[in-house]
Amino acid sequence: MPSQSPIYFAKMNNMTDQDFVIGFDLGGTKLQATALDCSFSILATNRKKTRAVAGGEEVYQRIKDCIAELAGLPELKRRQLKGIGLGGPGILDSDTGVIVYTPNLHWENFPLGPRLNEDFSVPVCLENDVNMGLYGEFHFGAGKGFKHVIGLFPGTGIGGGLILNGELYRGTGNAGELGHMTIQVDGPFGAESMRGTLEALASRLAIAKEAAVLAAQGEAPWLLQNAGTDICNIRSGSIAKSIQNGDKSIERIVRRAARYLGIAMGSLVNIFSPEAIILGGGLVEKLEDIYMEESVKAMKENSFTFMSKDVKVLAAALGDDAVVMGAGKLVSQKLDR
Amino acid sequence: MPSQSPIYFAKMNNMTDQDFVIGFDLGGTKLQATALDCSFSILATNRKKTRAVAGGEEVYQRIKDCIAELAGLPELKRRQLKGIGLGGPGILDSDTGVIVYTPNLHWENFPLGPRLNEDFSVPVCLENDVNMGLYGEFHFGAGKGFKHVIGLFPGTGIGGGLILNGELYRGTGNAGELGHMTIQVDGPFGAESMRGTLEALASRLAIAKEAAVLAAQGEAPWLLQNAGTDICNIRSGSIAKSIQNGDKSIERIVRRAARYLGIAMGSLVNIFSPEAIILGGGLVEKLEDIYMEESVKAMKENSFTFMSKDVKVLAAALGDDAVVMGAGKLVSQKLDR
Repeated sequence: MPSQSPIYFAKMNNMTDQDFVIGFDLGGTKLQATALDCSFSILATNRKKTRAVAGGEEVYQRIKDCIAELAGLPELKRRQLKGIGLGGPGILDSDTGVIVYTPNLHWENFPLGPRLNEDFSVPVCLENDVNMGLYGEFHFGAGKGFKHVIGLFPGTGIGGGLILNGELYRGTGNAGELGHMTIQVDGPFGAESMRGTLEALASRLAIAKEAAVLAAQGEAPWLLQNAGTDICNIRSGSIAKSIQNGDKSIERIVRRAARYLGIAMGSLVNIFSPEAIILGGGLVEKLEDIYMEESVKAMKENSFTFMSKDVKVLAAALGDDAVVMGAGKLVSQKLDR
Repeated sequence: MPSQSPIYFAKMNNMTDQDFVIGFDLGGTKLQATALDCSFSILATNRKKTRAVAGGEEVYQRIKDCIAELAGLPELKRRQLKGIGLGGPGILDSDTGVIVYTPNLHWENFPLGPRLNEDFSVPVCLENDVNMGLYGEFHFGAGKGFKHVIGLFPGTGIGGGLILNGELYRGTGNAGELGHMTIQVDGPFGAESMRGTLEALASRLAIAKEAAVLAAQGEAPWLLQNAGTDICNIRSGSIAKSIQNGDKSIERIVRRAARYLGIAMGSLVNIFSPEAIILGGGLVEKLEDIYMEESVKAMKENSFTFMSKDVKVLAAALGDDAVVMGAGKLVSQKLDR
């Protein structure tokens, strides 16, 4: 765990039955604030659209409103808010609570943690949203009971996270960028100057670009008719439905992407010797059978048998609540210190 | 750290000025036992050939003799042996001290730790030799002062090790098999059913197989004349000398291998966000300039700039003493518990 900023954790009282914390999921399109009691039961949830295009300060106001509305609900009136944990996108500094850079929220060096700390007068902690989601799964979902857990979340991009020795592993700050492992030297273009990364080969956008070509060539009639050839319109749901509706070519693309995921999982087994790998994200939610089948097969082919034979590959269990649960847990642990 | 076997660590006295520990490097071709005082100064070293072909029990006798001869040296007569740390090859169980499987020593489930414990009546600890070497570098060599350090050792194969949060990371037991990361889907054949692993693309044998073809085709005259086309005779030394003697084609092969190493290093930066990467092994020792140049360039191209910009890439500093130093340190820490 990184050192704690003094601003943040000035108050560190333990929680009682009458207290609650808020876990917050700050997404590019939606916000979710969830109140959790001291045993992590959900008391209430409030959701809003992010309206990211409105820009930095307005997005902050919406976050603040989302939390204030939740905290003001009748069922929480007699309880006391003790802390706020947030999972946010982009590059952030969990020591200082500053979001360093999130292009889609128009934030650069935005002091989200300190601002919320000032406005709500409670400790705030901020962490990468993928890490928070994995932390939620680790404590309350598919990862319960393990000590070494790897999370992979293929969606528009591919997020990753690491629980090592029972704790989130951050390295010098932003470890766990598992979507940016190279699995194909000189492969398709990815983030920055990278090529052939897992994300460039197996994300939803990587699938969509192949699917769009096949749709344009008449090889995926359902997809062409229902989603078209704009890769931004070829979402996980359309991909799943196109397969259900008989677009065999799309199934082949998805199976290949799931195989690529499994190849990366094999490398991760050899690197970490984990007990469990949790798969989540839009593609796995919509196409779990294909993902489990192909990825486990490829994982076994691409790792030492004695290391992979006991690795559990599990689908994420908490759905949309993973981030808020992890965020609530993390801030409560900081309160306990 | 794994739990300690009660057999091993029955005696856990702290070391005094008059005590010493032995660090042992159990290699496929040579054995090295080194006596270290309580401040890890080298008191004396004894070396023997392994004579692995002799088989399991004879190899054990040679190990025992190597240690006994060292401990019996006049300069150690007044000192007391307090523990033995061993770095060994193959799959091993550091909790029980059993070497599970090392084909080249003809050992399967060989209780090396318990046997030495019985014969020398001191605590013994056993760890993968690559991990021990990295642990030595971490405490006494190139890795001093860092908290998150990755080791990569390209030689006949490619070994790897992980120091995370200041400790050797083992996962469920044998983590750190970094040579077996896939960087080229469907690439050349590697260990078990793996393909396109770093080792299959960039180890000494991977270089030798390309070099042998070019030598056979007349593209590497010095190498052909001096090492021939048997890949087992094309060692790191011959590869280095062939480049020095003008075999340009061999330099191209090595530069490509170093680039592959750097691509894997880029992935490891994205995965771990480490402070330092230590490079060692026969190829790096013989061809350090090429390895540093190509690998750092490829690492930067294949990782996020904000993560790789502060990563130090360092050549291993302890040479042949890395394993014995790490082994001495590890057993002394167990004595301190």
